[in-house]
Amino acid sequence: MDMKLEDVTRIPVKFSEIDSMGRAWHGSYIKYMEDGRESFGRHFPGIGYADMVAAGILAPIVDVHVKYYGPLELNDVAVIRTTYVPKRGARLDYRYEIRRERDDALCCRATTIQLFIDQKQELMLEEPQYYIDWKQRYGIVDD
Amino acid sequence: MDMKLEDVTRIPVKFSEIDSMGRAWHGSYIKYMEDGRESFGRHFPGIGYADMVAAGILAPIVDVHVKYYGPLELNDVAVIRTTYVPKRGARLDYRYEIRRERDDALCCRATTIQLFIDQKQELMLEEPQYYIDWKQRYGIVDD
Amino acid sequence: MDMKLEDVTRIPVKFSEIDSMGRAWHGSYIKYMEDGRESFGRHFPGIGYADMVAAGILAPIVDVHVKYYGPLELNDVAVIRTTYVPKRGARLDYRYEIRRERDDALCCRATTIQLFIDQKQELMLEEPQYYIDWKQRYGIVDD
Amino acid sequence: MDMKLEDVTRIPVKFSEIDSMGRAWHGSYIKYMEDGRESFGRHFPGIGYADMVAAGILAPIVDVHVKYYGPLELNDVAVIRTTYVPKRGARLDYRYEIRRERDDALCCRATTIQLFIDQKQELMLEEPQYYIDWKQRYGIVDD
Repeated sequence: MDMKLEDVTRIPVKFSEIDSMGRAWHGSYIKYMEDGRESFGRHFPGIGYADMVAAGILAPIVDVHVKYYGPLELNDVAVIRTTYVPKRGARLDYRYEIRRERDDALCCRATTIQLFIDQKQELMLEEPQYYIDWKQRYGIVDD
Repeated sequence: MDMKLEDVTRIPVKFSEIDSMGRAWHGSYIKYMEDGRESFGRHFPGIGYADMVAAGILAPIVDVHVKYYGPLELNDVAVIRTTYVPKRGARLDYRYEIRRERDDALCCRATTIQLFIDQKQELMLEEPQYYIDWKQRYGIVDD
Repeated sequence: MDMKLEDVTRIPVKFSEIDSMGRAWHGSYIKYMEDGRESFGRHFPGIGYADMVAAGILAPIVDVHVKYYGPLELNDVAVIRTTYVPKRGARLDYRYEIRRERDDALCCRATTIQLFIDQKQELMLEEPQYYIDWKQRYGIVDD
Repeated sequence: MDMKLEDVTRIPVKFSEIDSMGRAWHGSYIKYMEDGRESFGRHFPGIGYADMVAAGILAPIVDVHVKYYGPLELNDVAVIRTTYVPKRGARLDYRYEIRRERDDALCCRATTIQLFIDQKQELMLEEPQYYIDWKQRYGIVDD
């Protein structure tokens, strides 16, 4: 049984993101990944930032790893594929792949890990309820 | 009698601020002006963001006007002169001048206006107390 | 006869644009205006950044004026109306209006002025040919 | 014999970098790391962006890995320790450690890898001369 929850979104590269080498600055990809997560959250409701706020939970990113394979240039559209990666424990993992729309060239592969912090600013060792609910809704079973 | 409160700070231009025309992107100046205000706040304590938070007041910017006279390039240092502009009423006005350190060329003149919002998210028609105190400390008399 | 060239585009506010006051940081609007100009350029081809590069011309922004009327918050969509403002001489003027999609509240009114710089990095006193061509295509007559 | 080339620089956190959770947005650390590399380049001249441009070489980042251990908040100063990591082959590796100045708490550990691209936009399999010269000047011997 395939549990893969995946979203694809298109983000045009902006002039202000292009650096003096003529390509999207490497730090811009952190925003593309954020665009990917936000689109994912609209696609599979219940896991977005607003849901966390409603639950009084923060989910800061604790690990980002980005590998760059090719440049995005002016007038390019970044096609961002964001995939939820089920992991045991109180954590939220995504995998990203970014391609150039014009030729489908691979530009980037990346991962993020988020942990949960409760209202006392303490790290949560158990999954928050809203996350358990969300996983149940989409039939996600921890491996 | 001269009331001019003025601060000068130096900010090196970053690689990520340089656009594909080889100059600091025009939007970067909004950050240089913020650097200017923060340096001003350290120079003349009591007017910074932390003071507003302590007083439960927000001071959002409601007007920004920037005029550009010359480019900042890689390896340039922006010299930011931030001047408090006394105005009658519940508002906070600054004037900015940005020069390139290497040749003292004028790069930018700008102004900002901030208003005050209280804890009920209402616009304040009277100056907040912390601002009155600050003005008194520095001998500022409204014209 | 009405010459008004106008484009409307929708830009979702990003988490990373929200400041500690819970609203889109005032500097983020510079990017929304850039989004507006880029959408305008796709709508009325021939005036975009790529056209300038093809003509060997730069069109740096020399004046930005932004007035803020209300906040954009998380999950808001900024609706950006970008209008070309015909002016006599070698300059390119836009006017912007940004509204919150959820309630159509006015958030921002702004203007930008761009001048033209040729390949020798000299300010152009005459309009570049590509700009004359573009104005002709859309029936723009200087007042 | 210790070859460790290391630089430490202090960067005040800006208001515009603070997100709605009250801490520096995770993407801001990419800029702090850039600040670290630029400070390193001033400390050990010959390896900076300007040197690459002079040599006609680009050195895009191909891998970024950031681990977050604690938040940076408003009024915090980020203390960035940037260390050159000698590796065999045509690559440039740095390691970063970011601490909060007020309590020396560890906020971030990170690494970057850069490769070299020549004027024909081809990946360089051999180290560029300016990089060999720089390594020699500082007595770096590949392990």
